Amino acid sequence: MNAPAKRRTDPERAQSRRNQVLQAAAVCFARSGFHGASMSEISKEAGMSAGHIYNYFDSKEAIIMAFVDLEAEHVTTQLRELESKDDPLQSMIDEAPRHIDENLDPHFFQLPMEMFAEAARNPKIAEAMRAADVSAMERFRPLIKRERERRGLAVDDALLEGRIDTLVSLFHGLPIRALHRPHLNRDSLIEGYRVALKALLLT
Amino acid sequence: MNAPAKRRTDPERAQSRRNQVLQAAAVCFARSGFHGASMSEISKEAGMSAGHIYNYFDSKEAIIMAFVDLEAEHVTTQLRELESKDDPLQSMIDEAPRHIDENLDPHFFQLPMEMFAEAARNPKIAEAMRAADVSAMERFRPLIKRERERRGLAVDDALLEGRIDTLVSLFHGLPIRALHRPHLNRDSLIEGYRVALKALLLT
Repeated sequence: MNAPAKRRTDPERAQSRRNQVLQAAAVCFARSGFHGASMSEISKEAGMSAGHIYNYFDSKEAIIMAFVDLEAEHVTTQLRELESKDDPLQSMIDEAPRHIDENLDPHFFQLPMEMFAEAARNPKIAEAMRAADVSAMERFRPLIKRERERRGLAVDDALLEGRIDTLVSLFHGLPIRALHRPHLNRDSLIEGYRVALKALLLT
Repeated sequence: MNAPAKRRTDPERAQSRRNQVLQAAAVCFARSGFHGASMSEISKEAGMSAGHIYNYFDSKEAIIMAFVDLEAEHVTTQLRELESKDDPLQSMIDEAPRHIDENLDPHFFQLPMEMFAEAARNPKIAEAMRAADVSAMERFRPLIKRERERRGLAVDDALLEGRIDTLVSLFHGLPIRALHRPHLNRDSLIEGYRVALKALLLT
């Protein structure tokens, strides 16, 4: 996480307070939107004074930047896990249910949805998301390339780029689908995803 | 559109004023977010008094509901076009570039992103989106079923449902992908989409 922990000497305590603010902010952003939630609403939810919160975050923008960092860490963890598999491409297909369940949970997707809406109008947040994406792609692309090479599949740059962007779009769209169709058939969806993933990764 | 045009006798003029408000609201929501944009900001952008706007829309919520209706009309138009094609499944694959370009345009996706974020916390807006989705699926599902039957492909309900939900997720995710990667390679992306669409529709 990039945002500095200001005026705090005990790093563990500072980290725990930061997390307390982030949890409260997630609740408030989900309830009132990024622009609707005030620092005073967040401080009330966190059970801390607004002045105390400013010790950790200069602004609401700094809070949403911390969420971008957390999301980037989550993606890095997932990519590291994938790199450790014997057969990463097959693992992605086999583990589709886990990623689908994660993306279908409204508690999981309310905050990203708010972050995306804000990034669409705030260049600083968009820039942070883009930098995180560049880092993630620098891990993901060579992994896909290596595994496709091992299977004797085409690995030219343009093809890899298109397949990966399509695959990522597929997962980004899932929460929006779930928002429109909350009672969708999870098992059928998993089968649909596997058909698309197999075509993108293994052909 | 469901929202009634209040106290207006000339329907054409009322419609034109409503559109004027919607255009201004789209600009304000994109700039300040749904919660950040006030009715007075919208009235200033529209060049109308706030009192005048209330003749057409009771609240900001009524404005966003009108956007949900417009989006539903757009989807219905697209489905009608698709129904008129000789080979709707192949048309969806051939016409991927048009839908991709539409979804990659930030001017197009800023407003939907705001609507989705708001729908994730506002049950009334979510309900309107869901009703529109049910109507769209009532047209889309039989079309896909008939065309797959014609080609001798499997058409059981669970399979169709999963394929369609996956396909819709693919397009919903595209703006979010573009937000993270504004300079993505469009031609490669089109090829990636075609691979996924062919697998979902023609296998």
